[in-house]
Amino acid sequence: MYEPLTEQKAIALAVRLGLFGEDALLSSEEIGDGNLNLVFRIVNERTNDSIIIKQALPYAKVVGESWPLTLKRATIESQALRTFASYVPHYVPKVYYSDETLAITVMEDLSHLHIARRGLIEGKTFPRLSEHIGEFVAKTAFYTSDFGMNQQQKKKLVQQFTNPELCKITEDLVFTDPFFDHDTNNFEAELRADVEQLWQDDVLQRETAKLKRLFLTKADVLLHGDLHTGSIFASDEETKVIDPEFAFYGPIGFDLGQFFANLLLNALSRHERDREPLFAHIENTWDVFTRTFAELWRESNEPYARTCGVLDDIIGDALVEAIGFAGCEVIRRTIGLAHVADLDELPLERRLHAKRHALRLGRELIVQRNTLTIKDLKHLVQQTVHVNS
Amino acid sequence: MYEPLTEQKAIALAVRLGLFGEDALLSSEEIGDGNLNLVFRIVNERTNDSIIIKQALPYAKVVGESWPLTLKRATIESQALRTFASYVPHYVPKVYYSDETLAITVMEDLSHLHIARRGLIEGKTFPRLSEHIGEFVAKTAFYTSDFGMNQQQKKKLVQQFTNPELCKITEDLVFTDPFFDHDTNNFEAELRADVEQLWQDDVLQRETAKLKRLFLTKADVLLHGDLHTGSIFASDEETKVIDPEFAFYGPIGFDLGQFFANLLLNALSRHERDREPLFAHIENTWDVFTRTFAELWRESNEPYARTCGVLDDIIGDALVEAIGFAGCEVIRRTIGLAHVADLDELPLERRLHAKRHALRLGRELIVQRNTLTIKDLKHLVQQTVHVNS
Repeated sequence: MYEPLTEQKAIALAVRLGLFGEDALLSSEEIGDGNLNLVFRIVNERTNDSIIIKQALPYAKVVGESWPLTLKRATIESQALRTFASYVPHYVPKVYYSDETLAITVMEDLSHLHIARRGLIEGKTFPRLSEHIGEFVAKTAFYTSDFGMNQQQKKKLVQQFTNPELCKITEDLVFTDPFFDHDTNNFEAELRADVEQLWQDDVLQRETAKLKRLFLTKADVLLHGDLHTGSIFASDEETKVIDPEFAFYGPIGFDLGQFFANLLLNALSRHERDREPLFAHIENTWDVFTRTFAELWRESNEPYARTCGVLDDIIGDALVEAIGFAGCEVIRRTIGLAHVADLDELPLERRLHAKRHALRLGRELIVQRNTLTIKDLKHLVQQTVHVNS
Repeated sequence: MYEPLTEQKAIALAVRLGLFGEDALLSSEEIGDGNLNLVFRIVNERTNDSIIIKQALPYAKVVGESWPLTLKRATIESQALRTFASYVPHYVPKVYYSDETLAITVMEDLSHLHIARRGLIEGKTFPRLSEHIGEFVAKTAFYTSDFGMNQQQKKKLVQQFTNPELCKITEDLVFTDPFFDHDTNNFEAELRADVEQLWQDDVLQRETAKLKRLFLTKADVLLHGDLHTGSIFASDEETKVIDPEFAFYGPIGFDLGQFFANLLLNALSRHERDREPLFAHIENTWDVFTRTFAELWRESNEPYARTCGVLDDIIGDALVEAIGFAGCEVIRRTIGLAHVADLDELPLERRLHAKRHALRLGRELIVQRNTLTIKDLKHLVQQTVHVNS
């Protein structure tokens, strides 16, 4: 039967699992933000070895309210980490144990790394971030797609990673609510005129509907499902992707789009002269993704993988999707329920300026997605600094 | 435990189910073609009341060979019939009973109707066929889509109707083998030059790859999955769709495409002057489909259903898909493993002429699908009578 762990019970579990030596002296600290999950860090005080015990809570605390939220997400998370580990073990935390009933995942402690969002806000550059994320996305996408795995086996993975409750959060908060006058939206009163203009933008809504429909219907590759910079631990050398509780089979460009959007939001939070490292990360992620995906392509058993143009079509689709999904993410992180610290920590005037810029950028990413190249994103940021430019 | 029924055991089952009165005098006849399923017709000789007991066999006999084939298809079939019946009860046989272990579906006997393919070959017109199929497809598609049902519930239906083994048959026989030199292909020696030209057609292959990818990834609506004219019973007044063992969540245009293709193949088997009823059926199916779908659209709870243009986009996608999938079906029924009697029963010279025409038509349906209207299909049949026309 499910019950939330205490620090003592977390230690008892670690002992029972035999993850430390017999003479270990264990301490436990709950380090989660308490909104969705309990996160215990268990340390052997004698050796400084440590592990993480993560437990899903049966509700989400958001803006003071409690929403019931399925515990199955812990199972999705541990299964996704294990699936990803079979393709890119160096980019995810090791999973030592999981318990479906208790909604627990016991895994590698990555406390020596920084959450990428926080690091980027503090001006860190994480020089290998884009190389690693490009490879992470290319390998997990290829090997879980109809081109990289047995197509019958893939259908069973689609079934296994069916994740209606968590997908609904994205469907509502990323694709729907910010584009309508919905009570989950949350923005500065000063932005009301800009937001109302967006709600009346028929062209934007029609294009966003297409992106939402792709998200609802296109069971293409196993996605992380929430690959923003807060789901990435990094240092100058290492990158680890965490928290895939939103994992499901979706469109190939979705994870890339979320990642690009959060780099763009960080760029908008900076002075113009300091944005280049973010644009470089975006372009390099795309280059590594396409190069890696094209190399893996040669392994495909799909007969059409040897047809001229098919790889180009898939890469082309991925880019259009990534840019469009990035636009949705930029907009929802600006006026929707869940914001980003990159913008929210700015002083008011700079914040309003950056958020207005974000709304214009997000709109153009969505509406122009079919004709943009990856290098155009940087120019689009320039072009959307001012209204009607 | 599974065992194939005998005629006596089929009668015993009918008695046990109490589907006839106590004084019934039952006879049983196995009327299936024995390739995939046993089909027993049980008749009460006193009243002429009758039922059908259909049992899946654990193999498929095709061109003399036995392929193992999952018994789960019987469960898919009875669940699909029940799901369809909740939206269009008048267009499917009533299901009285099903048994997953025995792979049995007990259902309404429709022997008073004709298989549409055979009737069309004999020159019947089935005046209401297109009205009924248009409504069948519109209602089943809408109500099983993200626009007509709860989106979380829909994901569970996608899971339930995961059908890897049967989908693989379509993936291989419709989308792949006919477009490559594969040993399942089957065509007259006289056609070899035409077929080899098709195998070397890079433009065609690249477009077919896109259609196959849609079939593999787009979990849009619950499809029948095999809606050719041999899966339809009809008379002048009635239409019943049978045999949905290929049912799965796929692209909205697929069932329409299979249906259009089989009407086109029948048209090609006729003299030019006799083709009009088939073109009229195709156009009317499309009209009824779009009109019905647009009416149902007003019931949608999806916020984007009220956004200008979204319905047009979905109907537009459905047409492009339907035309492209029709092209694949026309080609595979001409040179692939499973042919249609419409063409195969023609005398050799007319048959070769019709099949060459079909190959050219199929190619243009696929390659031009993005720019054709429904009325263009008739002209395309004209334009492809001769090479390079």
